[in-house]
Amino acid sequence: MEKIAEYQALITKLIDLQDYKKEPPELYDPIIYVMSQGGKRLRPMFTLLACDMFGGDITHALYPALAIEMFHSFTLIHDDIMDKAPIRRGEETVYKKWNSDIAILSGDTLFAMAYQNATQTDNRLIKPILEVFSKTAIEVCEGQQYDMNFETARKVSLEEYIEMIRLKTAVLIGASVKIGAIAAGADYTSIRNLYDFGVSFGLAFQLMDDLLDVYGNLEQFGKIRGGDIASNKKTYLYLKALELGDKEQKKQLKKLYSNKRLQADEKINQVVEIYNQLNIRNEVVSLMEQYYKESLRSLDAVVADERKKEVMRVFTWQLYNRNY
Amino acid sequence: MEKIAEYQALITKLIDLQDYKKEPPELYDPIIYVMSQGGKRLRPMFTLLACDMFGGDITHALYPALAIEMFHSFTLIHDDIMDKAPIRRGEETVYKKWNSDIAILSGDTLFAMAYQNATQTDNRLIKPILEVFSKTAIEVCEGQQYDMNFETARKVSLEEYIEMIRLKTAVLIGASVKIGAIAAGADYTSIRNLYDFGVSFGLAFQLMDDLLDVYGNLEQFGKIRGGDIASNKKTYLYLKALELGDKEQKKQLKKLYSNKRLQADEKINQVVEIYNQLNIRNEVVSLMEQYYKESLRSLDAVVADERKKEVMRVFTWQLYNRNY
Repeated sequence: MEKIAEYQALITKLIDLQDYKKEPPELYDPIIYVMSQGGKRLRPMFTLLACDMFGGDITHALYPALAIEMFHSFTLIHDDIMDKAPIRRGEETVYKKWNSDIAILSGDTLFAMAYQNATQTDNRLIKPILEVFSKTAIEVCEGQQYDMNFETARKVSLEEYIEMIRLKTAVLIGASVKIGAIAAGADYTSIRNLYDFGVSFGLAFQLMDDLLDVYGNLEQFGKIRGGDIASNKKTYLYLKALELGDKEQKKQLKKLYSNKRLQADEKINQVVEIYNQLNIRNEVVSLMEQYYKESLRSLDAVVADERKKEVMRVFTWQLYNRNY
Repeated sequence: MEKIAEYQALITKLIDLQDYKKEPPELYDPIIYVMSQGGKRLRPMFTLLACDMFGGDITHALYPALAIEMFHSFTLIHDDIMDKAPIRRGEETVYKKWNSDIAILSGDTLFAMAYQNATQTDNRLIKPILEVFSKTAIEVCEGQQYDMNFETARKVSLEEYIEMIRLKTAVLIGASVKIGAIAAGADYTSIRNLYDFGVSFGLAFQLMDDLLDVYGNLEQFGKIRGGDIASNKKTYLYLKALELGDKEQKKQLKKLYSNKRLQADEKINQVVEIYNQLNIRNEVVSLMEQYYKESLRSLDAVVADERKKEVMRVFTWQLYNRNY
């Protein structure tokens, strides 16, 4: 699986070599800050691996891959304002380190820079790539809006939740592989199957994120365990517990989520206690595996070199087996 | 000058016919709200008139023109959050009518929609148009950042101020005509001259905006007279007064701008009194005319049908002679 290491190095190098403008510093310092933070870079990886899968010229996918990473970072900058999130990837968020005006504007700038890179490819590819890019960008905004709406919604169904994470997270993974496939000139059916693979994997990936927040490992994940609970986030775990719990458990859960005086630690422990009683962990793992298997079936249907498809399988397997 | 009325009707129709998505309404209602507010639509007008000037196919410029109007509206939505501006075009701003989270996110969505439209043109034109579009978008963000920096800066020179409005306002007018010229397949030198025309006119236009805020007419302008003064905005008028004033006038002006208890009306009257003593109005009009004449010289240098250039001259003349 040398390809994986090779592309990871390539993306890191590409990002490091970006010659960001410097003036005004209030605008560009936050951009340099978020782009150099690291993160998993999984979206551009998906783009390059998808392009390679069809034997495509990787130079056609490279800047669109960077564009997707920039777009992703831009959404995090803006989301953190709306979510009032102080920490991201173990470091202060832009709105916290600077202020929300700077976070709005440096985010906007990074969004435009993403588009600049998305057009750095073969002329014939610009239109189809940008169509996917813009459509996806709009869907991600819709997903974030649904996520915000859920904060104050009286009731959120599991279906509504899945649709929200599909828009907010999964379609961008779908777009990442789709753009790689377009850059390689893949056939229409394979592009569609690969997109479905990316979306299903994205759903599994987000459910794992919900799970890791509660059952993950702090050191490796860089987030407070139970951060979603502390901030009353209606995750899949919470919504599933509301569905499965008896009257008393539901009442207790809602009470805990609306309690403003309880210490975070105490609240998290009590919520997790209910999750454990209801075996929520297994419930989430089961749905996650369902989406993961679905993603593999879509990948199987893609017409491409079998050894290269195997690289993609290994890559997703590694992501799927992160720390939980 | 039928062309002007014809294109104005065309743009209005194009905007009215947009079939915006509806869900979630929190995201799309603000977009529909700002796009239907009217405004002068002068940027898309510049694009269409520029395309027509070179005998270009107007259908190649139409959606990029809409893209520029959407981009402009997006920047207003975000700027109004940062400037805490409650009123725009005589109506409540998005952040005020809804909230700042919704203003951030519906703005982001509108930005992506702008790009969607910018690619709705002939395939060969997408790359050059998007290059201008993205470069300009980034410059507009830089201009807004400088504008915000000026709020807390101890000293702002007139040169810094002009550079700020060049980035924040003028380059977008330059881009509007440039994109129209690109869509028409104009020659390189004419494109450059037309861009210079747009930027110079944009500078004159913004200086006029500063002037109208103080010496304009409320009914037609839809803004409170002296709004810039009330919000301590360091306009060209203010900075010029600081340059020309004697020690006492400078001291008085700075004191008025830092006075938080004075009634807005009283403050505006006293600031305008100093402006009048120093003949600031004439100073601004003189610089405005300089930029306006410069824009006309650049337009003269453009190689195009003389009758069509005349349409552009009439259009800018009408804008230049708005209400002051």
